[in-house]
Amino acid sequence: MQIVYAAIVCGLIAVLYGIVTSRQVMSASPGNERMQDIAAAIQEGARAYLGRQYRTIALVGVVVAVIVAYFLGLVSATGFVIGAVLSGITGFIGMNVSVKANVRTAEAARTSLQGGLTMAFRSGAVTGMLVAGLGLLAIAGFFWYLTGPAGHAPNDRIVIDSLVALAFGASLISIFARLGGGIFTKAADVGADLVGKVEAGIPEDDPRNPATIADNVGDNVGDCAGMAADLFETYVVTLGVTMVSIALLVKADTAELLKLMTLPMIVGGVCIITSIIGTYMVRLGKGQSIMGALYKGFWTTVILSIPAIYLATQYTIGDMNAVIGGAGFLDPASDNLTTEAIAGASTSTAFTGMDLFWCMMIGLGLTGALVWITEYYTGTNYRPVRSIAKASETGHGTNVIQGLAVSLESPALPTLVISVAVIASYQLAGVIGIAFGATSMLALAGMVVALDAYGPVTDNAGGIAEMAGLPDDVRHRTDALDAVGNTTKAVTKGYAIGSAALAALVLFGAYTTDLAEFFPDLNVDFSLSNPYVIVGLLLGALLPFSFGAFGMTAVGRAAGSVVEDVRAQFRDDPGIMAGTSRPNYARTVDLVTKAAIKEMIIPSLLPVLAPILVYFVITAVAGQASGFAALGALLLGVIVSGLFVAISMTSGGGAWDNAKKYIEDGNHGGKGSEAHKAAVTGDTVGDPYKDTAGPAVNPMIKITNIVALLLLAALAAKGG
Amino acid sequence: MQIVYAAIVCGLIAVLYGIVTSRQVMSASPGNERMQDIAAAIQEGARAYLGRQYRTIALVGVVVAVIVAYFLGLVSATGFVIGAVLSGITGFIGMNVSVKANVRTAEAARTSLQGGLTMAFRSGAVTGMLVAGLGLLAIAGFFWYLTGPAGHAPNDRIVIDSLVALAFGASLISIFARLGGGIFTKAADVGADLVGKVEAGIPEDDPRNPATIADNVGDNVGDCAGMAADLFETYVVTLGVTMVSIALLVKADTAELLKLMTLPMIVGGVCIITSIIGTYMVRLGKGQSIMGALYKGFWTTVILSIPAIYLATQYTIGDMNAVIGGAGFLDPASDNLTTEAIAGASTSTAFTGMDLFWCMMIGLGLTGALVWITEYYTGTNYRPVRSIAKASETGHGTNVIQGLAVSLESPALPTLVISVAVIASYQLAGVIGIAFGATSMLALAGMVVALDAYGPVTDNAGGIAEMAGLPDDVRHRTDALDAVGNTTKAVTKGYAIGSAALAALVLFGAYTTDLAEFFPDLNVDFSLSNPYVIVGLLLGALLPFSFGAFGMTAVGRAAGSVVEDVRAQFRDDPGIMAGTSRPNYARTVDLVTKAAIKEMIIPSLLPVLAPILVYFVITAVAGQASGFAALGALLLGVIVSGLFVAISMTSGGGAWDNAKKYIEDGNHGGKGSEAHKAAVTGDTVGDPYKDTAGPAVNPMIKITNIVALLLLAALAAKGG
Repeated sequence: MQIVYAAIVCGLIAVLYGIVTSRQVMSASPGNERMQDIAAAIQEGARAYLGRQYRTIALVGVVVAVIVAYFLGLVSATGFVIGAVLSGITGFIGMNVSVKANVRTAEAARTSLQGGLTMAFRSGAVTGMLVAGLGLLAIAGFFWYLTGPAGHAPNDRIVIDSLVALAFGASLISIFARLGGGIFTKAADVGADLVGKVEAGIPEDDPRNPATIADNVGDNVGDCAGMAADLFETYVVTLGVTMVSIALLVKADTAELLKLMTLPMIVGGVCIITSIIGTYMVRLGKGQSIMGALYKGFWTTVILSIPAIYLATQYTIGDMNAVIGGAGFLDPASDNLTTEAIAGASTSTAFTGMDLFWCMMIGLGLTGALVWITEYYTGTNYRPVRSIAKASETGHGTNVIQGLAVSLESPALPTLVISVAVIASYQLAGVIGIAFGATSMLALAGMVVALDAYGPVTDNAGGIAEMAGLPDDVRHRTDALDAVGNTTKAVTKGYAIGSAALAALVLFGAYTTDLAEFFPDLNVDFSLSNPYVIVGLLLGALLPFSFGAFGMTAVGRAAGSVVEDVRAQFRDDPGIMAGTSRPNYARTVDLVTKAAIKEMIIPSLLPVLAPILVYFVITAVAGQASGFAALGALLLGVIVSGLFVAISMTSGGGAWDNAKKYIEDGNHGGKGSEAHKAAVTGDTVGDPYKDTAGPAVNPMIKITNIVALLLLAALAAKGG
Repeated sequence: MQIVYAAIVCGLIAVLYGIVTSRQVMSASPGNERMQDIAAAIQEGARAYLGRQYRTIALVGVVVAVIVAYFLGLVSATGFVIGAVLSGITGFIGMNVSVKANVRTAEAARTSLQGGLTMAFRSGAVTGMLVAGLGLLAIAGFFWYLTGPAGHAPNDRIVIDSLVALAFGASLISIFARLGGGIFTKAADVGADLVGKVEAGIPEDDPRNPATIADNVGDNVGDCAGMAADLFETYVVTLGVTMVSIALLVKADTAELLKLMTLPMIVGGVCIITSIIGTYMVRLGKGQSIMGALYKGFWTTVILSIPAIYLATQYTIGDMNAVIGGAGFLDPASDNLTTEAIAGASTSTAFTGMDLFWCMMIGLGLTGALVWITEYYTGTNYRPVRSIAKASETGHGTNVIQGLAVSLESPALPTLVISVAVIASYQLAGVIGIAFGATSMLALAGMVVALDAYGPVTDNAGGIAEMAGLPDDVRHRTDALDAVGNTTKAVTKGYAIGSAALAALVLFGAYTTDLAEFFPDLNVDFSLSNPYVIVGLLLGALLPFSFGAFGMTAVGRAAGSVVEDVRAQFRDDPGIMAGTSRPNYARTVDLVTKAAIKEMIIPSLLPVLAPILVYFVITAVAGQASGFAALGALLLGVIVSGLFVAISMTSGGGAWDNAKKYIEDGNHGGKGSEAHKAAVTGDTVGDPYKDTAGPAVNPMIKITNIVALLLLAALAAKGG
């Protein structure tokens, strides 16, 4: 229990850091009146959107909570509500800090690059620490209650179900927030660009463009609130599923089980501390490299986390070389399998604390590798982005072809390193090893989210500088900060989806174990030679594609209505273009809000309903064992294609965006050249790729898996 | 044996049809001198390319033949050579007819639409019947030799290995031909468009454009020769693997086995006859609908095939209701599995001739459904194409976004109907049922290829009409023929990849059965809870993405060199643009030839080497059972992601192309409007999608599977 308390204290420290740092941010000057006006409009729009989004999600949430309560009882329903509410709060607070930091960053950038960087990064760090801190508090607090005051054993079914329900709450909110926010931000961005840059010939963020406030609102509700909800979900699901799989798979006595189950929490806790230390290392060096400054913070955290994780593991486990009970699906040392193993029951495998430590080092290594690969594919210094920039010289078509080529190429290296990490951690400690690999990745969430959340703040700061007519050098500084933001945004997405691949494998392990426990007489065949497995794989692999299609269509449609609204405003009031009258920003914001909310519903329900539908249809056709086999395969089909769809979209989109920036830096003819026009097209195409469809695949994968687990529990509870 | 003779006779009839019909085509007027000049240039370029391509492939082929001979003996190596040579011949003859029919189609279109249609379709039918006829002759002839004069039992290992080697020969050639031809055609097309339409402002097929002959050569070497090799491969692999899986899985006496193994051949045979009858039904009705005329031929073939297949089955099997020996992986009636079943050995399942007949009806139904779905996604009358056309109004970016949305959406319905077909045919007759479903699909290949091969002929005819300065109404007629060709081209690709999904499942069945036979002591775990299975799935799913990236990059790079060459020609000789001197067409053709050959090598070797590499690496790390598990999973990973990548690329590309045509028909502002410019960008992007990367995924999937089977046999032969 001591360790749970320690984890809770770490979570509280993160929240405290958030409060102190956000006060620091607020105490800075918010700039002149014009700047404050603009910022107020953005704040108003962002709050209006988030309010409406949360009201809509709340409706779905209440229905789902009732269903969860009916099938799994009130404690699980409470877990669901805690996950959902905290996910919402994380997004809301993060966005609130972000919409106040943007104007202060613009103001700080008047004096120096360092000033702007510090302000933007600090506000990002608030979001980051809240994601990790609230996530840890939710899990540790709930676990403490269940195993302490409520008196359950750590591997009681109610504890397992409740942790899964907690993860489900976080996931359900996050898919809505990711997708709704993603549609909002890109519909506004694409719409504003099309009608502003292309039709009216006015620059980005020109105050005459009625969609410009909506565009800035989008950065906050999509890239900040949506991203925060997504990473909160990833954090809770990863730690939660690690604990659940320990409870399900490890054969040990209650005391040892409890120790092992608290390990993910304390690892999360100590890494919050190392992340906080890392945030103070973000400083520009002599070379004034912004990416270098951010990396200083990131690598400080990574390096400090190595001894911190070691000490935490040693403190929790005790003897690092003592063998801990059986876990995993099959004995990695043996080539031969028993029927029992195939049916999903675990045969014993032994691991030590040292093994787990090495698995966590693999997780840290994987994080570093994914960061590096993403930077390679989206940074302006490397072949991929430059090849797109070069292809822009021959026109729109070749820009898009090369962008798609980079997009298709980008999943290769991540897949290889993920495969190596899976095999290595599995060899060390079976499925539990994979779970701890994922846990150590997510333990860095505070730092990674800080890097990401800094992006939309600088993007907004640039917009405010432009609209408020601040001197050119301010805009140059915010632009420099923003370009790095494109890469850090892509990094977080690659990291989240990479960890999702690991987490999904662990979730699948939980599914097979649950199945064996709930339906011991049903011999489910997960072999690839079972055609229902193959159909399940195909249907699962279909989901990310269909989901992506929904996302892309939604952005296209919503952007079209933005274009029409702006055209109407220009037509009805010629004073807007002349600069004599102010456009009706709120009308455009309101329109995008409604469109985004409407468009997010159906695709968000797809991963919730698909597993249920597939199970019941296949069961009706071919019996329950085939139904469960198809459902299990669907879970892996989602991850197998989702990994590729998500990485190709987020890396490809980031590369397109930075190819445009690379040209704007004066290469291949610079701004206004034909190459630049082609690059703008590529950037437009990449927008919904990288900020709407791609990132939403991450919560989608997890939701599908969690729904399957809950379906199993519900079927078992109601007698199959 | 009688039935094998009957199949051989049907194959000979197809070849005879080819000879007679190509004579008819040749006897038509080749037009005026200018037209003949142009046609001669195209012929010369196409032959030069194909010659060089075949020389390059021959080098690889000889090496592989030696390897096959070393590991599997001379008979298998002979099978490999037969498959390879016939695949090459099919492409070569098809292309030769095509490059002579193009100018005759242009000439015939001077008098009437019906004349042009007849000429183009007949030349397509020659290719179609050669694909089916030579495919059938190869299999039936080889099988006759092995089980007759050579005296082997139908399920002797040497028969099985030789049939697999025959399929391997066909596949290896076809992946080179598809990819090399695809790179050639799209590099020339994209390059010609970029420098002609976009830079110089001259129309498509303008004789002043030095790349225009290369563009027309490309239609023949890519869409005709490459496609023919691909479908030849699909035909041989599908029939071959059906026979192999009967030999491996069905427990019956030799006489019954022989009957069953000849059934796929005679089904192929009778459907050649129904296809030939169908070709005579292609006539314009009152409404002058070209698609309608083609459909008349297609549906005639489908409807006649129903009784033909029934009678062939009854004649071969005898009593349609008698139960035939055990097959399949597990008893569909039972939910429970034995270890034996899991290990890939077959438990007995019973099926009747009637069951097989229904499975083949499912195959015909699936073909019809895929044709209809593809037409929906690529035809100008439906929502998808029109949504892209509408999105073009707001610019290049929204055109591409909507195109990608359609592309991502398009695999959904095919996946659902394929899943239904898999489950239904499996319920009827296990894996053998799935195999017969695929066989009946491919039995229609003669007709389907005829529909497809007609496309490049009309495309060329339009080009020749333009370059020779024929009157506008001729070009209008060829354009109308060409627009339908875009849809029929997409249809064949959807059909090929759909059948590949079925064939891949059967191939995987053969893999697991072989494994159990060759390595009876090795208990390989294909369960989804085995991490090596998951890593295999991920690596397999990666292949189509990486392969697609290679294809897109190759086209972009080769098109770039076309642009540079054409620019140089314009610069060096201003007389070209003035129309006073003739551009150096041959230089551009030569350049594209070299580029395409160079670019095709590495991606074509990817699916050959990847399975071998994965097996050896995983075996080294985790033992042979894990190596085989990962390899097996890789085979399914390829099909799971390949299906989606291929369908999304071919349907998406077709939709982009026809959205441009829809605008050119006078919608959304028509030719020259801003929407049209955006649609041209979409078409350019879709080009390598639909004609290079997408279709090459089909042979890629099969090659990966076949290499795995051969690797198994080789390991077993050398005591692996």
